[in-house]
Amino acid sequence: MTDEVIAVIGGTGNLGAALARKLALAGRKVIIGSRAAESAVKAAKELGAGLTGLANPEAAAAADIVIVTVPFAAQEGTLASIKPHVIGKIVVDTTVPLMPPKVMRVQLPAEGSAAQRAQSLLGEGANLVSGFHNVAAHKLAKDEDLGCDVLIFGDDKAARVKIVALADLAGMRGIHGGVLANSAAAEAMTSVLIFINKNYQVDGAGVVITGKLAGIGT
Amino acid sequence: MTDEVIAVIGGTGNLGAALARKLALAGRKVIIGSRAAESAVKAAKELGAGLTGLANPEAAAAADIVIVTVPFAAQEGTLASIKPHVIGKIVVDTTVPLMPPKVMRVQLPAEGSAAQRAQSLLGEGANLVSGFHNVAAHKLAKDEDLGCDVLIFGDDKAARVKIVALADLAGMRGIHGGVLANSAAAEAMTSVLIFINKNYQVDGAGVVITGKLAGIGT
Repeated sequence: MTDEVIAVIGGTGNLGAALARKLALAGRKVIIGSRAAESAVKAAKELGAGLTGLANPEAAAAADIVIVTVPFAAQEGTLASIKPHVIGKIVVDTTVPLMPPKVMRVQLPAEGSAAQRAQSLLGEGANLVSGFHNVAAHKLAKDEDLGCDVLIFGDDKAARVKIVALADLAGMRGIHGGVLANSAAAEAMTSVLIFINKNYQVDGAGVVITGKLAGIGT
Repeated sequence: MTDEVIAVIGGTGNLGAALARKLALAGRKVIIGSRAAESAVKAAKELGAGLTGLANPEAAAAADIVIVTVPFAAQEGTLASIKPHVIGKIVVDTTVPLMPPKVMRVQLPAEGSAAQRAQSLLGEGANLVSGFHNVAAHKLAKDEDLGCDVLIFGDDKAARVKIVALADLAGMRGIHGGVLANSAAAEAMTSVLIFINKNYQVDGAGVVITGKLAGIGT
């Protein structure tokens, strides 16, 4: 299992780069994907940690687990470009349906969530999981305390277990959040957190689940 | 302002009764509403704290601020019964769109959220605010530590300010969550918390916003 390769599609962005670096530092083989291979190679070199870079489709093809970290506006095109290469693989969609300029307003897509939209765009061949919606990328990049749990959603529990473990490996606290449709909760919460950041002048407000969670401490 | 009367519609239910008691103990004049006046009177007597009881429409008519705490299945009928009595008033909808038996699955209504559905059912005459979605009623009733922030949503900031203050008065931490449409985040999170309660054997998991919130401490 631990020799499974991870591709981070859109890995030159803030969240993707931070996640890729964390996972590589934790000992996983991670490929950064980008629209242009050169950008991916450059980012991988800058981040170090043994990362390599490829164009998105090649990165997806070379990986066992594909994490997609692109803005909502790029979700459809990006998924189309990797679709042939993710059949039978776990795809972790991190897309938050933010529609500028109204990023402080919850605007869920017609499918119910960006995660369900990803499933619909990729078809049943891909095993969709979603997560990492509320993570402040700039904090993750600087190894700062996130003060934020990572809710992981997916209809396939075994796939969810793997991604919860990846979140833990990257130094976060992964928590099972239930079926893929539940992704709407974390996606929507991102707009609320952006509002809170502005309204209360916070640098990266997060969400923590309280209560004594059996099996994962408090 | 502090002599404004509060009605808790559906106040014989778990959340309604707990909220009504907390607000009454904090010195506010609170009327419990129920479908049957006798039930409301009985609940008010049992809860003490100076509470009184009336049928829902009469409770709404007698109040300045109307808090609605009914199950999703009862939302439409209940709002219809108080509609003529809430024109120009703040209505705080606490409805979570749970559709049994799949209560662990996020199922937001076509309007986007139960709060927006309430606005649509009551019309523009009512000043809609929403909140208290993630509160574990049994903890609130027993004055236990909730371990849960109360996100308050609404398009009218002045109305939101009042209800954030009410949450604080009732011993919770009220936080502005933005426009009414953002209510989807907290409503959806309730299904996630129910899932977490079951999956991790938690007694009332909650959600806390992290980060240094200017003006309200951490």
